[in-house]
Amino acid sequence: MEEGKSQENLLSRIVLPSDLKKLKVEQLPQVCQELRQFIIDELSCNPGHFASSLGTVELTVALHYVFDAPNDNIVWDVGHQAYGHKILTGRRERFHTNRHLGGISGFPNPKESVYDAFVSGHASNSISAALGMSVASRIQKKQNQSIAVIGDGSMTGGLAFEGLNNASICGSNLIIVLNDNHMAIDPVVGGVSDYLLKMTTSETYNKVREKLYRKAVALGVVDKDKKGRISRFNNALKSLISNEQNMFEGLNIRYFGPVDGHDVIKLVGVLRDLKSFNCPRILHIQTKKGKGFKPAEECATEWHAPGKFDKNTGEKIKVSASGLTPPLFQDVFGHTLLELARENDKIVGVTPAMPTGCSMTYMMHEMPDRTFDVGIAEGHAVTFSAGLAKAGLMPFCNIYSSFMQRAYDNVIHDVALQNLDMVLCLDRAGLVGADGATHHGVFDLAAFRPVPNLTIASPLNEVQLRNLMFTAQIPGHGPFMIRYPRGKGVMPEWHETMRSIEIGKGEKLEDGEKVAVLTLGPLGNKVLDAVKSLKSQGMSVACYNMIFLKPIDEDILAEVGAKFKQVITVEDGTRNGGFGSAVLEYFADHDINIKVKRLGLPDRFVEHGTPDELYKICGLDSESIEKVIKEAYENV
Amino acid sequence: MEEGKSQENLLSRIVLPSDLKKLKVEQLPQVCQELRQFIIDELSCNPGHFASSLGTVELTVALHYVFDAPNDNIVWDVGHQAYGHKILTGRRERFHTNRHLGGISGFPNPKESVYDAFVSGHASNSISAALGMSVASRIQKKQNQSIAVIGDGSMTGGLAFEGLNNASICGSNLIIVLNDNHMAIDPVVGGVSDYLLKMTTSETYNKVREKLYRKAVALGVVDKDKKGRISRFNNALKSLISNEQNMFEGLNIRYFGPVDGHDVIKLVGVLRDLKSFNCPRILHIQTKKGKGFKPAEECATEWHAPGKFDKNTGEKIKVSASGLTPPLFQDVFGHTLLELARENDKIVGVTPAMPTGCSMTYMMHEMPDRTFDVGIAEGHAVTFSAGLAKAGLMPFCNIYSSFMQRAYDNVIHDVALQNLDMVLCLDRAGLVGADGATHHGVFDLAAFRPVPNLTIASPLNEVQLRNLMFTAQIPGHGPFMIRYPRGKGVMPEWHETMRSIEIGKGEKLEDGEKVAVLTLGPLGNKVLDAVKSLKSQGMSVACYNMIFLKPIDEDILAEVGAKFKQVITVEDGTRNGGFGSAVLEYFADHDINIKVKRLGLPDRFVEHGTPDELYKICGLDSESIEKVIKEAYENV
Repeated sequence: MEEGKSQENLLSRIVLPSDLKKLKVEQLPQVCQELRQFIIDELSCNPGHFASSLGTVELTVALHYVFDAPNDNIVWDVGHQAYGHKILTGRRERFHTNRHLGGISGFPNPKESVYDAFVSGHASNSISAALGMSVASRIQKKQNQSIAVIGDGSMTGGLAFEGLNNASICGSNLIIVLNDNHMAIDPVVGGVSDYLLKMTTSETYNKVREKLYRKAVALGVVDKDKKGRISRFNNALKSLISNEQNMFEGLNIRYFGPVDGHDVIKLVGVLRDLKSFNCPRILHIQTKKGKGFKPAEECATEWHAPGKFDKNTGEKIKVSASGLTPPLFQDVFGHTLLELARENDKIVGVTPAMPTGCSMTYMMHEMPDRTFDVGIAEGHAVTFSAGLAKAGLMPFCNIYSSFMQRAYDNVIHDVALQNLDMVLCLDRAGLVGADGATHHGVFDLAAFRPVPNLTIASPLNEVQLRNLMFTAQIPGHGPFMIRYPRGKGVMPEWHETMRSIEIGKGEKLEDGEKVAVLTLGPLGNKVLDAVKSLKSQGMSVACYNMIFLKPIDEDILAEVGAKFKQVITVEDGTRNGGFGSAVLEYFADHDINIKVKRLGLPDRFVEHGTPDELYKICGLDSESIEKVIKEAYENV
Repeated sequence: MEEGKSQENLLSRIVLPSDLKKLKVEQLPQVCQELRQFIIDELSCNPGHFASSLGTVELTVALHYVFDAPNDNIVWDVGHQAYGHKILTGRRERFHTNRHLGGISGFPNPKESVYDAFVSGHASNSISAALGMSVASRIQKKQNQSIAVIGDGSMTGGLAFEGLNNASICGSNLIIVLNDNHMAIDPVVGGVSDYLLKMTTSETYNKVREKLYRKAVALGVVDKDKKGRISRFNNALKSLISNEQNMFEGLNIRYFGPVDGHDVIKLVGVLRDLKSFNCPRILHIQTKKGKGFKPAEECATEWHAPGKFDKNTGEKIKVSASGLTPPLFQDVFGHTLLELARENDKIVGVTPAMPTGCSMTYMMHEMPDRTFDVGIAEGHAVTFSAGLAKAGLMPFCNIYSSFMQRAYDNVIHDVALQNLDMVLCLDRAGLVGADGATHHGVFDLAAFRPVPNLTIASPLNEVQLRNLMFTAQIPGHGPFMIRYPRGKGVMPEWHETMRSIEIGKGEKLEDGEKVAVLTLGPLGNKVLDAVKSLKSQGMSVACYNMIFLKPIDEDILAEVGAKFKQVITVEDGTRNGGFGSAVLEYFADHDINIKVKRLGLPDRFVEHGTPDELYKICGLDSESIEKVIKEAYENV
């Protein structure tokens, strides 16, 4: 760029896409450069999903330049890619509030902006949703476009395939933009990924295509008057040369590409051409995750959500810890899994695209043959694990709690019904913080409690997580579910020798009178703080850590029912149907007349913020819990 | 077949597959004929899934002749196809008990036989499960084969695709047999289906393949020494000629076929050849659903599960009804949907492969542009509906309750989170009967109750179903879930004018004293019988039909809490976390001290039988309910 010209900042003039459209197409590269720098500047001091949004800068600018949102529906698959979109659609000034309490959310959110056409925290939903919108336009005779923007990582999800499979039959004019960066959060795995890579790496393609085509016409195989056939011929030929097939044409979706996703002027041209078609079509673009920020280009996984960093050097800014700090639950899981797998050769690990996030990487590095990253495919992860278990292995299948919702039927039909010995680890249980409503793991307790044969446990701390994992890998228990939260625990010295825990047995943490508090999971630590604080004020309240939601410890419940006048239950899941309800059910079934107050998450979607902020809002911080216990203690 | 030879019955000699293996391959056609006749004979008097199992007779015989079950794992995708398998694996003598209480189950069931390698009531799980087994063999150095047998209908499910996408990367030697009959229960829809059809209809394929291949070698495009390439070349060429692509090779799965699935000797040969490969591979066979029974061949949908019939004429045996009988809930849904859609042009219908089963066919015939059969793809059905709703339409998305488990996350993430105005109809709620544990719709109440923004209702009878549907299509309520059972209701005269119901309001059916019974859904009719019987014995018990699980009618609960000493709740879902628990929660939250007894389904999987038999076992028949109420009334 010439000096002087860069003086005039274009991005600052763009409040809405209509402002972008006033620019000349030649000015778009500058907009892209400024947008990219804006993202780097903001993310360096306000952490978020970084590398994905850098990769889609040009696509975002081109889409908003060519299409007319919100009349046209742009559906982003997983909001990781959509920061540029947010910045260009009225949220540049507020972008510094991204992922903060009360600020804009990190994912597209229709409640936040009409430009966010559909919610997109979970992967692979964009094609189905945009297809619905496209069909609705046809039925309502509305002239507009619906565009699904989906990364290659999301393409491994079965939902995306179900959408693709239906795109051709619904009479839609859906546009799918396949943003191919060969990388989800961890590198993409599976046939589709290899396929996309190979499909686009044929150097000889353009050279021989014309030659072989003429031969084929001569042989009478191809009718040169039939354009559809010719388009297919080109694709088939490409398949042949690259050793691969074009799956999309096989599904009756017109395929275009691949196109350099960082050439904004080219993208504008292609998208304008695409607009005129009236059929389902897919544009395959190739981008680089982390594009324009060298450290991120070199290691996109590490820069998926890097935290704060120096925007000039790329150095990550570490929060200095004084003395020993507790580990992440994730690392406890990862190290413990490896320890157990070294001793028990039946153990295998399965994760749907989250080996880094859940720390299965430790085992993966040492035992690559016994760990399986199956891509974004939660249902398959569970049923594949069930197959492994049925054939005699002991899988640890680790899935984030909110993503396990995707595998609800697989757990019921493929695991619980056959009462298979296997372990389901639900990471990110409870309120996860900045990722917000789509990612909170709050339905699992209530949803899985009614499922027969399941054992469901949640550890108070790191050592208990280890002991539960140790217990779970001993065969004979049926499916064993362990849920634990995102982030740090409470025990700097966590690496104790493991021991087995009796299934269905909780523990008394504090003795007391009148009021007993029953907790499940790591919120118990806050409860303990509250109980100890009350003790220092002369109020002796009992506290039990139940450890197991199912089977629930009926000995403790009988003891509590006989000895106390009031019970308070505390959990980091929904109040409806969860742990507290299990306690109510026991007392009702056993004709025990005792007051029960249930603390848990409310019957509404909780937005984003820090976990501490959110738990406080929900009345689940130590102070709020203490207040409730105190009131009960004084009024009983 | 010559006369005389047919005297000797081969099938009667086969107890286990080892007996089959003693026969000569030339004898297999006779085995197939006898097996087919056995199925026709049995099914004519003992109804079950008919047409699918006729289509897989030859495949079943060939698989058990070539492979060595149970050492080799044969995983049937959806047990509809597996009757022949059951008959050849030790269950011929008991086959007349199929689907009866205490008899063999209608789907493969590992608890029933070691030959049933994996449970398979829900579609599309076979590839993931068999892949897990295959990988387990590799890890445990076990020399055996794992075979997934999957119909083309099941291939539209995202789970099948997730499995396919992983088959190539897990170092497995999985065999997939794609049983392509171009028909699930209703004809298959979608790109995959068209694709399979076109892929196999190229007449010119064999003629030109050699010629064009040589040209390609001459042009240097194909290296004739690379066999992999040549195999791919053949496939690419086939794609070209047939205007389609081979998706499977694109996923790095070796493709073989198509082969006539009714030529048992050919199948034996191909399967023997396939056995020697050590890589994931797919065999594509073509079969005819209903093969060998002409009426079923001509209309496979009608003969999917035909009921009793005359095995000679094919005439269906109708159960004669005396006078007016109540309609099926399904037909009430179907007719009512059409009535509503005629008045409200926003209404569209969506079903995943069950237009006949849920009676959406009425609307489909009159309004083909406003109804969508999306194939076996429950997640997509919900998210696609969410897209339709987001764009201003009012979808009625109808999914069987147990299949809705597949769309749990879609309901949470794509529907409830956006609080979309749309209708989710859960057909086959409660115990479904002969289909058994995989198909009972018993988790929905507990699983969906914790999800914010949902309205959840269940009608007592046909008129209430109509009124709920009428209410649900009026915008402004957010997502509206209506669950109702399989089979007949109670109102022969059901076609009343519809009226809207106040959301969250139940109704008092009977006044009484001391004891109040609260019911949800059609079990309320049995409760009413019990209450009336008690009334005739001089016991006046109150009865409320709550209609809504969520929002629950707090006015009724307050009234009941103030007036009665004991409450009994009755529901056709799990006792854990369901309707009864919602009642408990209300009383606990409002410090109302009242005894609550909850009747519902136990914490175990319920097997097959008639609904009446099963409800009786679970204590939910009129007599059992009456007994419980009476006891409570006398002891309060």
